[in-house]
Amino acid sequence: MQYLEDLVIGAKHSFGRYQVTRDEVLEFARKYDPQPFHLDDEAAARTHFGRLAASGWHTCAMTMAMIVENITANEQAGLGSPGVDELRWLKPVFPGDVLRCETEIVEATPSRSKPEIGSFRSQVTTYNQHDEPVLRFTSIVLIRRRPDPSVAPA
Amino acid sequence: MQYLEDLVIGAKHSFGRYQVTRDEVLEFARKYDPQPFHLDDEAAARTHFGRLAASGWHTCAMTMAMIVENITANEQAGLGSPGVDELRWLKPVFPGDVLRCETEIVEATPSRSKPEIGSFRSQVTTYNQHDEPVLRFTSIVLIRRRPDPSVAPA
Repeated sequence: MQYLEDLVIGAKHSFGRYQVTRDEVLEFARKYDPQPFHLDDEAAARTHFGRLAASGWHTCAMTMAMIVENITANEQAGLGSPGVDELRWLKPVFPGDVLRCETEIVEATPSRSKPEIGSFRSQVTTYNQHDEPVLRFTSIVLIRRRPDPSVAPA
Repeated sequence: MQYLEDLVIGAKHSFGRYQVTRDEVLEFARKYDPQPFHLDDEAAARTHFGRLAASGWHTCAMTMAMIVENITANEQAGLGSPGVDELRWLKPVFPGDVLRCETEIVEATPSRSKPEIGSFRSQVTTYNQHDEPVLRFTSIVLIRRRPDPSVAPA
C-alpha cells in the first residue's frame, strides 16, 4: 500500500497507452458533446480542429482510464478526489491517436482536522504519439496516512 | 447569433434536466473509471460515498450534454474551450438523481491579438433534485465578436 508518507515531491511517473478510435470518439460525442466538430468530418474541417476531434471531456475520461489502471497496479491508499485545477485542452485529439500519461507530485499535505488522512496535488499531462501534450490538469487527491504502529487499533 | 458583445456580466442562466440511470453510471465507470465505488454496491457502501456513485468525470460529461443542448438552442458564436478552472466535485451523484445546470457569466474580454474574437469565463454549477450543488467549475470559452458593419468583408 502506498500512503501519504510514501509520496515524494517531484517524483514523476509515466504510464498508460490508450488507442483512440473513431467509433469511440463518435459514441462519446453523440451522448455527451454533440457539437458538429466532434461528430462530422466536413463540419470539423471548417473549424480550427481541421478534422474530426474528440470531445475534451472524452480526453479527460480516457486519461482517467489510464490513471485508474495505474493506481490499481500501485495499490495507492487513495480516497477519491475533490477536484482538479487549471485543466487545459492543449491540442486536439484525433481518431488514430495513441495517448499516454505522465504525472508529477507537486505537493503533499497532512490534513489539519483528520489525523488519519492527507491530500496531494499531482500534475497530470496526457501526450499523443508525437509527444505533444494534449491535456494538462492538477489533480487533488485524498489519501490515507501510514497507520502508526505505536497506536493500538480501536 | 449571440456574440461577445451580447454577454452580460452577472447574467445567470438555468437549464437542463438529466436523469441519471444506474445502467449509464455502470457503463461509464466500466469504460473510464473502474474504481470499486463506481461499480459495486457493497464496495461503495464501505466508502464515504455510502452507495454506488457516478464517476466525477461522468458528472462532467452529463453536465456538458446539458450545456451543448443549451448553446445549440441559443445559437452562441462559440469557438470551443481551452479549459476549465477550479473544478470541484461537491457531492456524490447517485443513480436516480436528476441533474440541472446553472451558469453565471463572470468575465468577458476581447482578445488582444485577434480583433475578431474574445473569451468569457462562466461559472457552471450542476445541482441534483434536492437543489444541492454536486459539481462546480469555471469554464473558459472562446467566442466571436459581433462583425463590424462598417468594415466591408474581405
